[in-house]
Amino acid sequence: MERHKALEIVKKQLTEHRYQHTLGVMETAIELARKYGVDEKKAELAAIFHDYAKFRPKEEMKQIILEQNMPNDLLSYNMELWHAPVGAYLVQREVGIQDEEVLNAIRYHTSGRANMTALEKVVYVADYIEPGRIFPGVEEVRELARHDLDEALIQALKNTIQFLMKKNQPIYPDTFYTYNAMVMNRKGGIET
Amino acid sequence: MERHKALEIVKKQLTEHRYQHTLGVMETAIELARKYGVDEKKAELAAIFHDYAKFRPKEEMKQIILEQNMPNDLLSYNMELWHAPVGAYLVQREVGIQDEEVLNAIRYHTSGRANMTALEKVVYVADYIEPGRIFPGVEEVRELARHDLDEALIQALKNTIQFLMKKNQPIYPDTFYTYNAMVMNRKGGIET
Repeated sequence: MERHKALEIVKKQLTEHRYQHTLGVMETAIELARKYGVDEKKAELAAIFHDYAKFRPKEEMKQIILEQNMPNDLLSYNMELWHAPVGAYLVQREVGIQDEEVLNAIRYHTSGRANMTALEKVVYVADYIEPGRIFPGVEEVRELARHDLDEALIQALKNTIQFLMKKNQPIYPDTFYTYNAMVMNRKGGIET
Repeated sequence: MERHKALEIVKKQLTEHRYQHTLGVMETAIELARKYGVDEKKAELAAIFHDYAKFRPKEEMKQIILEQNMPNDLLSYNMELWHAPVGAYLVQREVGIQDEEVLNAIRYHTSGRANMTALEKVVYVADYIEPGRIFPGVEEVRELARHDLDEALIQALKNTIQFLMKKNQPIYPDTFYTYNAMVMNRKGGIET
């Protein structure tokens, strides 16, 4: 799909603020893809559509999660997580994107998952560090992303877990599975 | 079992330093048990024996974990976790303690678990805050434990997760599950 066509489709789903964020994620994802040898067109497409479902009504998302047999535990955690798997589903159904790698990069862009692909990492990190992001800790992740995608992802996961703990929020299991898998893999196994 | 008899048994298993720690956990666990309406004798007994297996050889612990069908994933995580379930097993077999509540307080004193009993919380927190402990964050947990056992436990879990992340160590899933269960329970469900 052409970039301008994809952007035209997604623009209708988003607020102006969120659309600007999406453009930032797109540019950043393309850069990271180039740097880390990931398919740039797939990174572009996944980035453009990563927040496609962000403004769907809560009830619609809930219904899709139930009807499509998505992990039920999603409903016990913050609804911020829902738009990612619901987005992957809607982008396939409504936009007609069938590429499973692209859909997975959308599906896991908020929770992460153990054993993420490089494309999934690119979109996750791009979403975290795009130029519009200004929260504490983002600059450290930006700096890491210049040299090591995995280190950037690990730091983003740590920041996310830390942020949730400060707010006494539960941490979605996939998020800490991602963290565990990344640090275990990084060390080539764990010291015991 | 009489306190002096229990202490005599456990002393042989520990270094002097660890025995002094055990005395601190015992005193603290009894205090917490009294404050929070938990059986003081059970708290005393679990505290005395909580580190019973601390100095068993790694290979012996590994063999027990495998032979007794303990959660296999323990072996993929830091061996600091092993002495707790192995301790529960050995305390039953070698010391003859049969009280499942006491054994569970020993079994889960390092990892925690979702839906911990009050006795388990008492031993977990006592182990964290006994007077000999001097690491960063301990004073905050001590202060919380004076008023709210659950808040103290949540803070201890946060500190532990934070500490492990700083060292790029994986976090044992039960520890996350404990944190999640505690904050979800505390809020009476999660905002979505």
